[in-house]
Amino acid sequence: MKLVGISMDLTTQKPPQDRGQIPGNGDNLRDFAFEVIKEDGSTGARAGRLKTPHGEVETPVFMPVGTQGTVKTLSPQDLKECGVQIVLANTYHLYLRPGPELVERAGGLHRFASWDGPILTDSGGYQVFSLADLNKVTEEGVTFQSHWDGSFHLFTPEKVIQVERMLGADIVMPLDRCLPYPSSREEAKLANELTIKWAQRCQKEMGQDNNQALFGIVQGGTYRELREDCARSIVGMDLPGYAIGGLSVGEPKSAMWEMLEVVLPLLPKEKPRYLMGVGMPEDLAGCVALGVDMFDCVIPTRNGRNGTLFTWKGKLVVKNAEYAEQFNPPDPDCTCYTCQNFSRAYLRHLFQAGELLGPRLATLHNIHFFTQLMSRMRAAIKEGRFSEWKRGFLSVYEDRSK
Amino acid sequence: MKLVGISMDLTTQKPPQDRGQIPGNGDNLRDFAFEVIKEDGSTGARAGRLKTPHGEVETPVFMPVGTQGTVKTLSPQDLKECGVQIVLANTYHLYLRPGPELVERAGGLHRFASWDGPILTDSGGYQVFSLADLNKVTEEGVTFQSHWDGSFHLFTPEKVIQVERMLGADIVMPLDRCLPYPSSREEAKLANELTIKWAQRCQKEMGQDNNQALFGIVQGGTYRELREDCARSIVGMDLPGYAIGGLSVGEPKSAMWEMLEVVLPLLPKEKPRYLMGVGMPEDLAGCVALGVDMFDCVIPTRNGRNGTLFTWKGKLVVKNAEYAEQFNPPDPDCTCYTCQNFSRAYLRHLFQAGELLGPRLATLHNIHFFTQLMSRMRAAIKEGRFSEWKRGFLSVYEDRSK
Repeated sequence: MKLVGISMDLTTQKPPQDRGQIPGNGDNLRDFAFEVIKEDGSTGARAGRLKTPHGEVETPVFMPVGTQGTVKTLSPQDLKECGVQIVLANTYHLYLRPGPELVERAGGLHRFASWDGPILTDSGGYQVFSLADLNKVTEEGVTFQSHWDGSFHLFTPEKVIQVERMLGADIVMPLDRCLPYPSSREEAKLANELTIKWAQRCQKEMGQDNNQALFGIVQGGTYRELREDCARSIVGMDLPGYAIGGLSVGEPKSAMWEMLEVVLPLLPKEKPRYLMGVGMPEDLAGCVALGVDMFDCVIPTRNGRNGTLFTWKGKLVVKNAEYAEQFNPPDPDCTCYTCQNFSRAYLRHLFQAGELLGPRLATLHNIHFFTQLMSRMRAAIKEGRFSEWKRGFLSVYEDRSK
Repeated sequence: MKLVGISMDLTTQKPPQDRGQIPGNGDNLRDFAFEVIKEDGSTGARAGRLKTPHGEVETPVFMPVGTQGTVKTLSPQDLKECGVQIVLANTYHLYLRPGPELVERAGGLHRFASWDGPILTDSGGYQVFSLADLNKVTEEGVTFQSHWDGSFHLFTPEKVIQVERMLGADIVMPLDRCLPYPSSREEAKLANELTIKWAQRCQKEMGQDNNQALFGIVQGGTYRELREDCARSIVGMDLPGYAIGGLSVGEPKSAMWEMLEVVLPLLPKEKPRYLMGVGMPEDLAGCVALGVDMFDCVIPTRNGRNGTLFTWKGKLVVKNAEYAEQFNPPDPDCTCYTCQNFSRAYLRHLFQAGELLGPRLATLHNIHFFTQLMSRMRAAIKEGRFSEWKRGFLSVYEDRSK
């Protein structure tokens, strides 16, 4: 196996001198580093290793979503047994309930939720615009009304970083202005400007005395030149990782691929690249081929709770009548607890009967499937056969999914 | 440790000759036996061992309720890790959904639900009278309307046994006539007569060629002489175990104790005694002292889903505001997964946020508590200090529960 050595110890990285006023967040990261250990010959795919204060993550990686400090229905032990390496938690939700002060007093989110692996917290930007009852954006920040109790709150870039510091995740995201699709060029341009200014304020707020890695977020809607502008500005901040936001928000799939092809080449090879909110297994394979390292999405958990299971032969809606008397496991090739112990018929019965074990077992299977999917991709990249693997995977998987 | 030897290998037991027409169900039980291994000196408590086709059960034992073929929120692995020895499943529910034919084709309930330990199925009698939209009782059986889809069904004693045979539990209960509280003496007398006739028809239907143990059920409402009559008739059938039904249905607690004191002395010492639908920890301790060996109740699972946790110091309603910032485990003396990993504050957050992990972790703790409670009682009986243990337990437990 040939390994390449695009490695960067972020503790030794200097802030960019042409932006000297803004301290590079990478400057004080004691326990954070990223290393590309293998690049695929024929695609942009790469296998890497991300070091965090709570352990190492092999990339490409899928991060299950633990919105309220729990990946719905699953225990931390389940996550470990499924091979989950890192989870995402939502700042917006945890800020409103139970509140960052409480989480901080509990010893931080890792201890509160009893998850000792790495955690990434989003900034709440997406939720403020998609969930809050009202929101009003100024350069200062965004005022919003809680979708739970109607109370009013102000998220500024500084406030969000303060909240994320109290939560204590390993990787934190800056407040950004995420637009719905479609949005006009003018709206997208203004959102870009805010996103960049806010990112700089977040970076400043991070300061020198913490060990959390602040990633940048590239916005820009579905406009090539806005994506390019945003990518260049954010990359210029010399952050320890870069995310692509504002995709998978309803745009045509072709627009997503186009934007990825614009943005990814602008992101430095030696930093992790995180595509936010994606996605379906076929998308994960396609995005890894373009060089994405990190993903998060509610798909495996939400679909699991609704009775849709991902298998190597496509999706299986286990509630359907056709499975009522199928006594084989959901996926005969799967080694998860669900597939090792239960039949499609039993799972269907649990969903029909409204039993909570149904969502739990389906979620467990889906999270296991997603971690296995990423694991197979990593192995294929390391063994120099990623294109072949992807072709084989899609030929079987998509055949049934469609 | 002094052990006594009230043991009965039910494979060698003869049907009672004075009732020669009705075959004793114990006659053909290859893998079923009960043995009292220690009697308490100062109370009626005894420790025993119940052999079933799916393994041995140490008594006194608490059976979690898995109504629809799953102990709500928990996996079979959870149950094993909690020390659960035997579970109960409801014939009424499984008959209606997914249907006994499907369960039989799946290989029986053990295989369908992936639980390889012993199972007891109730007869559906209680549910027909408490859940069904309509029910009409004749000597033939009971016609009822499904509470799910309004369809009409007839449960006869024979039908119930056929259904329970398809489900394949280790211990099966006969169709009985369970009355609500209060009921008149005349109603209770008629119900008794039906219960006895139906039990005889169930025994006959059991036949010679199966390996399930049919227990008898003693009814009689809150009327001493009806309880006595029923107990004598049912015991006369020489069944492998005896249950007391129709208690914990709303009568005063004093009436329950009175009925137990009437019935228990009439049940043979060498057979297991099962008190249906009981109960709270303090009741379990009291009933074990009177000589009960087996219990089932929805209390630990239902209360768990509602956020009430049982601890050695009484009940803890974890949703209450007072626990919002208590970062210690629900029960510091508990070794369950929940208490080893999570705080009261986190559990409260899960319940406040409507997260399914909350009911799951609370149920897990409660089931662990109930199995530990029974385990401590068994140890105390074997070591000749049951009265002392019970006094100590209640003095701490009840202090806070009230």
